[in-house]
Amino acid sequence: MKLPLLQKYLKVKGIDLAFLIHPDSNITYFTQMEPSFAFLLIYPQKAEFYLSLLDLPPKLSKIVIKRVKKGWENKLKDGKVKKVAINKETLTLAYLEKLKKIYPKASFEDISFLLKELRSKKTEEEVKKISRACQITDKAFQSTLYQLERQALKTEKEVASFIEKRFRELGAEPAFPTIAAMGSNGAIPHHLTSPQKLRKGFLLLDFGARYKNYCADMSRVVYLGKPGAEEQSNYELLLNVQEQTIAQIKEKIPFSHLTDFAKEQLGRYSSYFIHSLGHGLGIEVHEAPSFSERKNKVQDGHVFTIEPGLYFPQKYGLRIEDTLLYYGKTKVLTKSPKELIAIRPFS
Amino acid sequence: MKLPLLQKYLKVKGIDLAFLIHPDSNITYFTQMEPSFAFLLIYPQKAEFYLSLLDLPPKLSKIVIKRVKKGWENKLKDGKVKKVAINKETLTLAYLEKLKKIYPKASFEDISFLLKELRSKKTEEEVKKISRACQITDKAFQSTLYQLERQALKTEKEVASFIEKRFRELGAEPAFPTIAAMGSNGAIPHHLTSPQKLRKGFLLLDFGARYKNYCADMSRVVYLGKPGAEEQSNYELLLNVQEQTIAQIKEKIPFSHLTDFAKEQLGRYSSYFIHSLGHGLGIEVHEAPSFSERKNKVQDGHVFTIEPGLYFPQKYGLRIEDTLLYYGKTKVLTKSPKELIAIRPFS
Repeated sequence: MKLPLLQKYLKVKGIDLAFLIHPDSNITYFTQMEPSFAFLLIYPQKAEFYLSLLDLPPKLSKIVIKRVKKGWENKLKDGKVKKVAINKETLTLAYLEKLKKIYPKASFEDISFLLKELRSKKTEEEVKKISRACQITDKAFQSTLYQLERQALKTEKEVASFIEKRFRELGAEPAFPTIAAMGSNGAIPHHLTSPQKLRKGFLLLDFGARYKNYCADMSRVVYLGKPGAEEQSNYELLLNVQEQTIAQIKEKIPFSHLTDFAKEQLGRYSSYFIHSLGHGLGIEVHEAPSFSERKNKVQDGHVFTIEPGLYFPQKYGLRIEDTLLYYGKTKVLTKSPKELIAIRPFS
Repeated sequence: MKLPLLQKYLKVKGIDLAFLIHPDSNITYFTQMEPSFAFLLIYPQKAEFYLSLLDLPPKLSKIVIKRVKKGWENKLKDGKVKKVAINKETLTLAYLEKLKKIYPKASFEDISFLLKELRSKKTEEEVKKISRACQITDKAFQSTLYQLERQALKTEKEVASFIEKRFRELGAEPAFPTIAAMGSNGAIPHHLTSPQKLRKGFLLLDFGARYKNYCADMSRVVYLGKPGAEEQSNYELLLNVQEQTIAQIKEKIPFSHLTDFAKEQLGRYSSYFIHSLGHGLGIEVHEAPSFSERKNKVQDGHVFTIEPGLYFPQKYGLRIEDTLLYYGKTKVLTKSPKELIAIRPFS
């Protein structure tokens, strides 16, 4: 259903072909594989996938597989092509030069908005894969809690490695490098997991599995030891805001309204919330819909995160993040518990 | 030393500034970090690194760190800038549009060749990091052989996971997803490591550590069981060609001559050799010098791989790959044994 929609657009607009070239996650979207090098030519009536000789060709029903051979630029050369669709968000200037040589008479038309639109509306099959990725993420978290309880993990690195090992055991990969941030390290939202020893305080975990090319993304915070009153209340404020924001989601609500709502609820704490409320995800861990484009609204088939955070420099960071699907109603796909879990032995 | 060379070039060419924007591995080259989002402005006399608020700023001596804030495009806007250097191999059309708005009167000049030239000549510090990455890769291979001997690894996935776990234990990360390819899977050079059980036959391993942002790359083949005469002789042919090709390396020899030499030595087997003889590496696992550009010649400071391979469809694949440094003479940085190791228990 994805390819025909794009092909229909090309036909209507009188575009000869769309030329997508690696690296571009849309190639994975249409072919379900991550090639070392490849390009995809989509014509109104057919599609050709030129793949490096180094890769095993995927099984595709509506796309003919060809091999990239030396001098492919010359072999493709076509003076009759008048209009070529490209993705301006991934096409580099160097490749545009190449395309201009292959299609010397063509004009180039951006279809990045259309690709984003297609990508953002997940099919049932895509939702199944993302749901499975979320389930694996939940399972890995559950196992991690168990390991933390029995004090089997001693450092941030060990926690992250354990999570990623569980992903692999469950048939997935990490969708992105796992973040495990102890105490003040958590105040850097993208902290690089380090050999830092676990100790009393908040441990922030941001992780997600990638299953059959589709991502999950979840953040949870646990407390090693017994939290103080202020720590507990800051956590509860954030959790409350996250849950209330999720409750606001409805069809056609602009993502920017959700952001405004979350900030309003955070009140004077909103200055400690220094990133976006969320992001679409699917093949990429960040993809359309973007929360920062004001025109974007919640629509059926959207999969995205809601992840408010509070970052207290030199003290600690909190982030509670779920992956959600909207289809008629909101469905939270990551189901791990969110009440603050205190892991006793570190008191 | 890297920044001043680029700055000198800008000065000589009357270029106002170079604008590098994420994703571009040159940002890691100059800042020694991998940001979530960032751009680097290099002027003839100064440099500014605009970093996302989500990342911990690196410690840099000659680059001022600033933070990316909302509306950065408008704040940077400068009608006086006349010439902006860009990297056409990474700059997308979407970002070029943005740059044209920021610098409405500027012309844009590609410096990708200069960046590649800088990157390809490794400094002593870079060589140290790559050497350490190679040492870690060797150690991981040694441990893997031990695990294979005692039959502790049962599938391709288990082999790859073990290698990557060793990398992490040794303070590194995988430079790329580890390839473990059993038997006929090895005939696909970029085989995706699978749950395939280990059994009698060639097991091809392609792996490398990344240490402090610098990569190693090595391939070895072991035999599980006792190889047949033809298997043994094909392996020896390849090993012989790999070692003889390495012996041909000298200053100013074109990489294409090394390729021609290897193919000549492979004789009638050269049709089974379906990829490049090697590639430069450093911050990226594939970077300059490229073996396919005929003008490229071996020069002091070059770090690259030599990796002939033979791929017999549906049968097996062989690849022997080392990471080398040329500096006055050839130094092989990966030192794992290359004679065919037969692992007995699988006979």
